[in-house]
Amino acid sequence: MEADFIEECLSILSRTPATLDALLRDLPNTWTAATEGPGTWSPHIIVGHLIHGERTDWIPRLAIILNSGTSQPFEPFDREAHFKESNEKSLPTLLDQFRASRQNSISRLRAMDLMPDHLDREGMHPALGVVTVRQLMATWTAHDLGHLVQISRVMARRYKQEVGPWAAYLSVMK
Amino acid sequence: MEADFIEECLSILSRTPATLDALLRDLPNTWTAATEGPGTWSPHIIVGHLIHGERTDWIPRLAIILNSGTSQPFEPFDREAHFKESNEKSLPTLLDQFRASRQNSISRLRAMDLMPDHLDREGMHPALGVVTVRQLMATWTAHDLGHLVQISRVMARRYKQEVGPWAAYLSVMK
Repeated sequence: MEADFIEECLSILSRTPATLDALLRDLPNTWTAATEGPGTWSPHIIVGHLIHGERTDWIPRLAIILNSGTSQPFEPFDREAHFKESNEKSLPTLLDQFRASRQNSISRLRAMDLMPDHLDREGMHPALGVVTVRQLMATWTAHDLGHLVQISRVMARRYKQEVGPWAAYLSVMK
Repeated sequence: MEADFIEECLSILSRTPATLDALLRDLPNTWTAATEGPGTWSPHIIVGHLIHGERTDWIPRLAIILNSGTSQPFEPFDREAHFKESNEKSLPTLLDQFRASRQNSISRLRAMDLMPDHLDREGMHPALGVVTVRQLMATWTAHDLGHLVQISRVMARRYKQEVGPWAAYLSVMK
């Protein structure tokens, strides 16, 4: 395990389930089903997307890199595959599933016992081309934070009209 | 208490301390001291700003509206007044202070026992002019979420280079 970088990523990755829990569990539907308009995602849908990533994206791709390098391109990630499942499950159920999936991912990552030179190992992204383990770990981490940005922004913008003249001071409304 | 709207605001306002705690407490300094460049705020500074708002902005201004209407303009809010205090205190201390200040604010709000017609009561913002209780409550709520957007974005962008070609898929990096 490359102490500094991997642990820095894990300090975020390990916190995301509890952060989403504190923010979203038992929040009224008016907040958790809110979107930014047709075709955009609600907090509920975003949690479903995060679960799908745990199952099919991050650790499976990391395993492909470690096992096969660039010779086996990753499966394309279907960003909308989770919609049906997410819509059929309650948000508390999805939050529980995300917590369990993330714990499982972290256990699998720790079991890989990555060393510093693993970070430069290369894999083949089906659209982006050559990527490294370091880039995959950074992307997984930034992806969590990016969706936390999105969830918070979607909810803030529900009040775009309600804040009246204060909108001028709230950059999130722009 | 106007059940629907005020309770909807409180469902967010009451969760923010625990959300920030889950996200930030005991996180390495590399994350909590990160900024988006000179003159921009770190997560640590933002928590200090939120405490300052509890003490001098939201509930004090609400009390001015209820007591004096538009005849007493609000004190201007100094957005940088908290910098010195924030810099001298650890983030765990600030998170504890924010939790206590927010709890106090919510207790004071509940003691005001707002009725539906209170939401249209007007106050005088020193720069924006006439504002209502409803607008103040919506702004307080959106302000929390806007700073959660900011904290998450600041941290995500630390990895702008590290994510490599994946930056093309991460809108938070733009």
